[in-house]
Amino acid sequence: VRHAVILAGGSGTRLWPASRRRQPKQFLPLAPGGETLLGGTVRRARAVTDKVVVVTAADQADATLAAAPGVALLAEPAPRNTALAIGLAAVHLAHADPDAVLGVLPADHHVGDEARLAAAQELAFGAAERHDVICTIGIRPTRPETGFGYVELGTDEVEPGVTAVRAFLEKPDAATATRFVADGRHLWNAGMFFARAARIIDDIRNLLPQTAAVLDGVAGALAAEGPVAAADAAVRLYPGAPSVSFDTGIMERTTGRVVVPADVGWNDVGSWAALRDVRGTDPDGNTIIGDAVALDAGNNVIATDPGTMVAVVGVDDLIVVRSGDAVIVLPRSRAQDVRRVVEELARRGKDGYL
Amino acid sequence: VRHAVILAGGSGTRLWPASRRRQPKQFLPLAPGGETLLGGTVRRARAVTDKVVVVTAADQADATLAAAPGVALLAEPAPRNTALAIGLAAVHLAHADPDAVLGVLPADHHVGDEARLAAAQELAFGAAERHDVICTIGIRPTRPETGFGYVELGTDEVEPGVTAVRAFLEKPDAATATRFVADGRHLWNAGMFFARAARIIDDIRNLLPQTAAVLDGVAGALAAEGPVAAADAAVRLYPGAPSVSFDTGIMERTTGRVVVPADVGWNDVGSWAALRDVRGTDPDGNTIIGDAVALDAGNNVIATDPGTMVAVVGVDDLIVVRSGDAVIVLPRSRAQDVRRVVEELARRGKDGYL
Repeated sequence: VRHAVILAGGSGTRLWPASRRRQPKQFLPLAPGGETLLGGTVRRARAVTDKVVVVTAADQADATLAAAPGVALLAEPAPRNTALAIGLAAVHLAHADPDAVLGVLPADHHVGDEARLAAAQELAFGAAERHDVICTIGIRPTRPETGFGYVELGTDEVEPGVTAVRAFLEKPDAATATRFVADGRHLWNAGMFFARAARIIDDIRNLLPQTAAVLDGVAGALAAEGPVAAADAAVRLYPGAPSVSFDTGIMERTTGRVVVPADVGWNDVGSWAALRDVRGTDPDGNTIIGDAVALDAGNNVIATDPGTMVAVVGVDDLIVVRSGDAVIVLPRSRAQDVRRVVEELARRGKDGYL
Repeated sequence: VRHAVILAGGSGTRLWPASRRRQPKQFLPLAPGGETLLGGTVRRARAVTDKVVVVTAADQADATLAAAPGVALLAEPAPRNTALAIGLAAVHLAHADPDAVLGVLPADHHVGDEARLAAAQELAFGAAERHDVICTIGIRPTRPETGFGYVELGTDEVEPGVTAVRAFLEKPDAATATRFVADGRHLWNAGMFFARAARIIDDIRNLLPQTAAVLDGVAGALAAEGPVAAADAAVRLYPGAPSVSFDTGIMERTTGRVVVPADVGWNDVGSWAALRDVRGTDPDGNTIIGDAVALDAGNNVIATDPGTMVAVVGVDDLIVVRSGDAVIVLPRSRAQDVRRVVEELARRGKDGYL
């Protein structure tokens, strides 16, 4: 049976001041219509399967249920990256359903073309069911992005629309990224993975023995005493677990990897500048979330809380965001420097703003 | 006896969003050390006389007393500009003290050199006591400002440091203002006027008969029945009173005008850009009121409420202000366009932000 596993453990700082330690990106109403990224991910997942579980931090369970009412939760006692989070979901789902097939989806991305995504997920689930593979959905790159990992296409087509993977590649330098876009053989790794639970557990056992030991402890408690004992085992074992990403720990090293190349309007919402693509622009090129006045001002990204106002006059290509007790202003071209502000606030001990 | 009469009726919009309909400029903590402009004006007035009265709108009495505890108030039932406000003060002070000499001071300006201001006020009060004149303090212009009225110097020196006035002039065009700065014969009209109460009442009677009729009604009630009856008379008579400024109605037309030229670090705080001169700049050229982080950013004016944070990265020569439920961002060179934002908000019916 197909299960969507949504990973909602992130704690990004690149959308400060809207994203905070206690309010990561997936809980922000950034998608069109004010939907949260998590809410949109859950809704898109439900379009392909009625079995949806969200893996979340224990202290974000309430926020998760607020953004995605009625969803099943699997709470992690500490953040230990995606290999363990995906493994934990595989253990739990395999316990209840030995034939479980997982479709792993990040909670904090946006997808514009939901019909195409559903079709790609259908192909990916099918490939994972019919072959002993881990299938990913690869996004055709539109720019030489150095912030993403890449999937290098192989030559064999396993099924129509499903191609063998030659390599999973870490974030490239600019020259390499430019080559990747030009050669047409490289796709963005969007962090979506489809595989049978048993296959995931086997890969972790073979490639990440320390992670596997944690999962074995949880699985043993689950089999012997049930979910409460499994949660207790996780609380006991997580602190000593290594932090390894599924990309690095498994996908770069395993065999039997396939990819569905897809053009689904994917956006990782990795900065305020990315909001332009997610939310679109008005006739002046401004992207506005909330209540704003823009006079002689174009190509800005403006966001403010409900019940508050941002006014700009005579400025172009700026990001202006007001959220809660903080405001940030910086050029769109320097959207990544939000991180520097967060670092500076931490350096000054202004933790209340983080 | 010398009385300082502080006019606190203004309702400027040029410092939006800090200045609002219910919170005019004089109540804002813009002076160094977070003093309000009104509080600073009262403090400077007390340096030259212990008799200080603030003329304020009736609905701003509480805010006035919060900014200037213990001050005497004279409340106007409606705003009718400065000729009537000054006349009302003259009537009340003359009733209690037939020899009252008034020093009229705007509540919402800043003065950097308080010792020089005190010396200039001493000269101005003295001239008003010894001669049948209205004396003003004229500020030596430092730029061809078109937003102020000017005082044209005459040739006679009435007393040492006190010169006859040839003309009071309205706001000039740019070419005229440039000539005024160059010729050394023109000073900024800072709205400070010193004269005996009886002289002010006589001038109003001669030049502004409608205004005089209102004042006669108030004075009659005051003489016959006391201050409560005088307040009732004001409530009855103010709605029909004309709105005339003391500058236009009296100073441009009366005779016996003298001026004390002075260099007192005067600033009308007429825009956010003016904050640079009032509050100074840090080594990066930034003027910061409140808690801010500025990275690779210079020559900005940044203001935010206590307990809130503004962060800027990679921007220069901007005004960034957060106050209450609103934020404004615009270039320093366009500081006057704050008014356009206020107009646009009114046009959209967003009165809650005004």
